[in-house]
Amino acid sequence: MSHPSSPSNPVALLQDLLRCRSVTPADDGALGVVARSLEMMGFEVTRLAFGPEGGQTPNLYARLGQGGPCLCFAGHTDVVPPGEGWSCDPFAGDIRDGHIYGRGTADMKGGVAAALAAVARRLEAGPLKGSLAFLITGDEEGPARYGTRSVLEWMKEQGEAPDFCLLGEPTNPAEMGEVIKIGRRGSMNVVITVKGTQGHVAYPHLADNPIHRLVPILHDLTSRTLDHGSDWFAPSSLQITSVDVGNPATNVIPATAQARVNIRFNDLHTSGSLCNWIEDVVACHAPEADLDVAVSGESFLTEPGAEVEKLSQAVQAVTGRTPKLDTGGGTSDARFITHCCPVAEFGLVGATMHKRDEHVSLASVEQLTQVYLEFMQRFGV
Amino acid sequence: MSHPSSPSNPVALLQDLLRCRSVTPADDGALGVVARSLEMMGFEVTRLAFGPEGGQTPNLYARLGQGGPCLCFAGHTDVVPPGEGWSCDPFAGDIRDGHIYGRGTADMKGGVAAALAAVARRLEAGPLKGSLAFLITGDEEGPARYGTRSVLEWMKEQGEAPDFCLLGEPTNPAEMGEVIKIGRRGSMNVVITVKGTQGHVAYPHLADNPIHRLVPILHDLTSRTLDHGSDWFAPSSLQITSVDVGNPATNVIPATAQARVNIRFNDLHTSGSLCNWIEDVVACHAPEADLDVAVSGESFLTEPGAEVEKLSQAVQAVTGRTPKLDTGGGTSDARFITHCCPVAEFGLVGATMHKRDEHVSLASVEQLTQVYLEFMQRFGV
Ligand SMILES: [Zn+2]
Ligand SMILES: [Zn+2]
Repeated sequence: MSHPSSPSNPVALLQDLLRCRSVTPADDGALGVVARSLEMMGFEVTRLAFGPEGGQTPNLYARLGQGGPCLCFAGHTDVVPPGEGWSCDPFAGDIRDGHIYGRGTADMKGGVAAALAAVARRLEAGPLKGSLAFLITGDEEGPARYGTRSVLEWMKEQGEAPDFCLLGEPTNPAEMGEVIKIGRRGSMNVVITVKGTQGHVAYPHLADNPIHRLVPILHDLTSRTLDHGSDWFAPSSLQITSVDVGNPATNVIPATAQARVNIRFNDLHTSGSLCNWIEDVVACHAPEADLDVAVSGESFLTEPGAEVEKLSQAVQAVTGRTPKLDTGGGTSDARFITHCCPVAEFGLVGATMHKRDEHVSLASVEQLTQVYLEFMQRFGV
Repeated sequence: MSHPSSPSNPVALLQDLLRCRSVTPADDGALGVVARSLEMMGFEVTRLAFGPEGGQTPNLYARLGQGGPCLCFAGHTDVVPPGEGWSCDPFAGDIRDGHIYGRGTADMKGGVAAALAAVARRLEAGPLKGSLAFLITGDEEGPARYGTRSVLEWMKEQGEAPDFCLLGEPTNPAEMGEVIKIGRRGSMNVVITVKGTQGHVAYPHLADNPIHRLVPILHDLTSRTLDHGSDWFAPSSLQITSVDVGNPATNVIPATAQARVNIRFNDLHTSGSLCNWIEDVVACHAPEADLDVAVSGESFLTEPGAEVEKLSQAVQAVTGRTPKLDTGGGTSDARFITHCCPVAEFGLVGATMHKRDEHVSLASVEQLTQVYLEFMQRFGV
């Protein structure tokens, strides 16, 4: 094992993390890098593996201090596959022209490294007032069944109850300081399968074309304006992501037709209310159709209050920008954390996340470290 | 080469034809069986190969006599693939319990054999009054580009102009004598390809979902009642045969969506009028969409007159049934022949055509031979 990087240097920590090939579900030592840093700072670190034997998800929970308030940093060390076309090794942590390259620099090994470095600096600055915690998972990009969700269940059993959680996902579209996320839309996937009766196109009365019953369903679903947005949310959006029949014969009416629908919904809906609506539409055109509904998460909102205001001030103090409070984009583990305590998200610039040549500027990593440090001071730990 | 079957025995001729594995585009000697029979009867036989070098379609035209009227028998010797699950060899011509089995017994080697035998018996009965012709193709079940269509072009150049054509496709649903076809609906295939812009479902404003423009097109196309039928035709019918996107990612808006549509249309429409309508619908919802239109054939009708009445009488005399004059079912080469001369179709029972264990009764083959003979007498050749 090489000499561990100084916990107060976020770029060195980030390089250690980038050199682990932690493509979900692999860990390749990434959580070990986090654990060693935290142990060096005096945290009590608990490694937590959840899930079925042989395919367990690695997670980590750490705590320093017992007093209140308790601030918890949350994040993940797993990354999506690098894909093709990189101009450098995606797992080397190369630095070029003031930027650091690698899969996970933005999403979100950079956020984890900045939180660790910020805490190290906080501890160097003087004794802790409240307490600090870390909730780091190795499965956010995958099914996420035995990641943050399982750690939160374990925390509840242990009586671990942070007062506020800061998740370091890349929230800024282009520049540091643009966006704090205070909620996320809900997301659900619905697969609609309509079965008919196969036959020859020349004898349609002897067949039952399932496409002709799927089309009015899809027409109804796409014709409704779900809403016009709410106080903190953009309008909800329904997208048909695929329609598939796979019938190569031009003279045959097929037996089955299937459509896939994704809905990103705001706080004016729940997955249950949307599911009822879809069931009604389907019942109207194809009562015998199969519906397969998978809810990725309900919408949630951390109503802006004192903590979000303090985070906003910290961002402003460091970046000079007043961040927009936003609920857009995809889902994150904040959808689980919200059931435990108020949660907000602020991290690096996500412009290159999930793309080739993912990178962030060294300056932005330093800025994020300072934002986290400023926030700890304002939060009172 | 075995001893050729007597031209007046339709079952022996049919067995000779069935033993040729003439799955389109293969001929395997099938047209040779026809040619030898015709030559034995004194016909002038011309073998005609059309199409690109190396993949030419074999066809045959034969003529006996020069006087009028001229009656032309038309048909095809190619067959669709046998498929699985036969209880006997599909290319052996087995006879069992009064039925003859094999791919093409009904569609339509049986019709070809009956026409040959009927003509042999006509010639045995006395001198020909008018003249007789045969137009037999080896590609009706395939693309049919260089089959009957090309022979008709060649006939036009040669000044060969029959007064009436009788096509021996299997027209009877269950019993001999049920149906004479005096026309066919038109058929066209349209492929609609809508291109959009790929993107993430969480950012629909940055993408352009092609499915959301294809769905209203398909809804409009299926919402219109094309017509309620006409004097001799059933209502026209539009069937969406496939919709395909093939997007496995539930969080991605796809770049392209495609639908396939088949229309079977009667004499109240043309492929042109339908194409204009589809273009208007598509232009309304997705002006940049690609439309690929393939017309298999326009609708056509041989208005019932003296010849159809004579055919009807011949059917009635032999089978005891008054045949229904019909235009239903799929397409046939009659769609080409109609541009040359009046055409009607009468053949065997098609219940098992294109299926496993295709078969017809020996009695029906004999009946068809007699119907053709009776018709020649009434027609005046
Ligand atoms: Zn992430
Ligand atoms: Zn046929």
